[in-house]
Amino acid sequence: MARTMNFNPGPGALPLPALERARAEFLDFAGTGMSVMEHSHRNKVYEAVHDEALGLVRELLGVPAGYDVVFLQGGASMQFALLPMSFLPPGGSADHIVLGAWTEKAHAEAAAWAGVAGALARIAASTREGGYTRVPRPDEASLDDAAAYVHYASNETIHGVQYRELPTFGRAAQVCDMSSDIFSRKLDVSAFSLIYAGAQKNIGPSGVTVVIARHDFVEKGRRDLPKILQYRAHVGANSLLNTAPTFGIYIVRNVLDWLKGLGGLDAIERQNDAKAAALYAVIDAHPALYRCPVEPGSRSRMNAVFRLPSEGLEKAFLAEATRNGMVGLKGHRVIGGIRVSLYNAVEPAWVEALASFMKDFARRSG
Amino acid sequence: MARTMNFNPGPGALPLPALERARAEFLDFAGTGMSVMEHSHRNKVYEAVHDEALGLVRELLGVPAGYDVVFLQGGASMQFALLPMSFLPPGGSADHIVLGAWTEKAHAEAAAWAGVAGALARIAASTREGGYTRVPRPDEASLDDAAAYVHYASNETIHGVQYRELPTFGRAAQVCDMSSDIFSRKLDVSAFSLIYAGAQKNIGPSGVTVVIARHDFVEKGRRDLPKILQYRAHVGANSLLNTAPTFGIYIVRNVLDWLKGLGGLDAIERQNDAKAAALYAVIDAHPALYRCPVEPGSRSRMNAVFRLPSEGLEKAFLAEATRNGMVGLKGHRVIGGIRVSLYNAVEPAWVEALASFMKDFARRSG
Repeated sequence: MARTMNFNPGPGALPLPALERARAEFLDFAGTGMSVMEHSHRNKVYEAVHDEALGLVRELLGVPAGYDVVFLQGGASMQFALLPMSFLPPGGSADHIVLGAWTEKAHAEAAAWAGVAGALARIAASTREGGYTRVPRPDEASLDDAAAYVHYASNETIHGVQYRELPTFGRAAQVCDMSSDIFSRKLDVSAFSLIYAGAQKNIGPSGVTVVIARHDFVEKGRRDLPKILQYRAHVGANSLLNTAPTFGIYIVRNVLDWLKGLGGLDAIERQNDAKAAALYAVIDAHPALYRCPVEPGSRSRMNAVFRLPSEGLEKAFLAEATRNGMVGLKGHRVIGGIRVSLYNAVEPAWVEALASFMKDFARRSG
Repeated sequence: MARTMNFNPGPGALPLPALERARAEFLDFAGTGMSVMEHSHRNKVYEAVHDEALGLVRELLGVPAGYDVVFLQGGASMQFALLPMSFLPPGGSADHIVLGAWTEKAHAEAAAWAGVAGALARIAASTREGGYTRVPRPDEASLDDAAAYVHYASNETIHGVQYRELPTFGRAAQVCDMSSDIFSRKLDVSAFSLIYAGAQKNIGPSGVTVVIARHDFVEKGRRDLPKILQYRAHVGANSLLNTAPTFGIYIVRNVLDWLKGLGGLDAIERQNDAKAAALYAVIDAHPALYRCPVEPGSRSRMNAVFRLPSEGLEKAFLAEATRNGMVGLKGHRVIGGIRVSLYNAVEPAWVEALASFMKDFARRSG
């Protein structure tokens, strides 16, 4: 079987070795005569996997002491609600930096909760007016240092913008949605009070969300909510407050173990930089055909977006790419065009093949 | 490889054919050259699986017109919070029937939300005083017909009690947690306003929750909450409001397709009745050694609990069972003893083997 070149925006490609490992032991995990998904979440066999996955998050990201790591359910979208519920007290406010469709949604959900709780979710900066073609800078944000927290995202998958260096917005607690680029590059966790990420881009399958938070920030969370909505309760139960999504966490373990074997964040960052550089080089070398709307300093290394001169040409491009074994390249309906997702498991050879195809397509269309 | 006889309380055993199907296509789903978990949740390949799984829920349970079916994340425990958030308005009240540890938790979470929202979560009936050795009857419940809803569970996994016939408590909307016995027997969905169930007992792996609700009940839900917390939003998006737990839903599809092939609820109910009858017969035939604390009319066909005369004998029983390839039999720490979970995928031959072992153990201990 030929492996398809998968540029899906998420759920996206997973590393073949992580999948092959799962298949090999799918019916008989660790010699137990059953699948890992048939094990109780409270027995030693599963707990070893669970703790190894949590440990790999800590090890690969260099999570400092004083930080908690938990696996939750519901995706980043559930975090959009849980964050204000825990940390936006009645009368309090949060500052939102809006750089694309997802940070827009995060703000809308926080604003809904703020309406219920008698609090405020402010937009401190937004690049919406320019069509999200660059990320907002800290010096243009109208920040409130008394805010409960500042919320931004490191990368926006739909609009293809990314903070090449992760900024700090003022003096409030920094909260960051890193769903689409966590584990893709080195990271200073200590700059953040809380980081969260849906797994389905760089970490594993959909259905698992990683949260990394300063313990003293977690302790500030509201205490009168149902327990399942409180970070504190999940931390106290080591992500086993209720039945964890065990198979998803097991795949996360396999993926992170693969990443560790590859050399960790240093190695994957070099590889991801090279992949993105190769792709943007082809785009920029053919300005008559390919046009990336994103300002160079904000271009995402995870999701490269570009347009062709007409929707007809874009359709032809996508159809030919599919015939060449490359899928997942259609841009989000909100902005159209082409989107190339370049997550960790997207192999350098696939990007080379895509770049060659793009050159060839340009020559034939020129 | 010999398949272990798995009596885990959940996550529990899954049907071998459903797992074998998943393994066979693990790396190449439907000839696409990638795993089903690498597909976008918004492409046709995955959507066919998604819609088939939802359709099988409807078909097997005979879900009437006017009802919605959705897959959510977070387990039944998340429903403990989402239910009062949507349906317990400020000034409103809900009636809780408490028959074990899980309905106790459901009440505690509803009470927490009621405290935040200025509402009330009442206990209308509870068998806690008797140690949860039987289920509460409607005629002993102090019900409020003006309640927003009545909440109960059809089965309690820890205490091993079950409603053999599903009752109706008064005239308020009936809401039922069926996590541990849904799809185990025939069911009249039309008697309920909302049914929910974590998948990890009879339906699939952990990480997926099935919700079946009358559309007009869903529409009564509070509208000012963050969207991700509103049933309405998930219904409107066909369970694709955000990235669904795609692989989990795929396994649900495989499990329900297996159940359909077996003959559906009629066939599995006969099989489950026979399994439970065989097990309770052995318990009752050896009253000097095995004692089930649950009143006969409330004994669960999904989770049979019993004690031996001493913890030493229980330990010996469990150790010998393990050596004979039978696992997951240790009772929950709250009540100790032995628990035998008899979910759909627990094969009749395993129950026969366990019954033989129990007879033999009794003879040797007698």
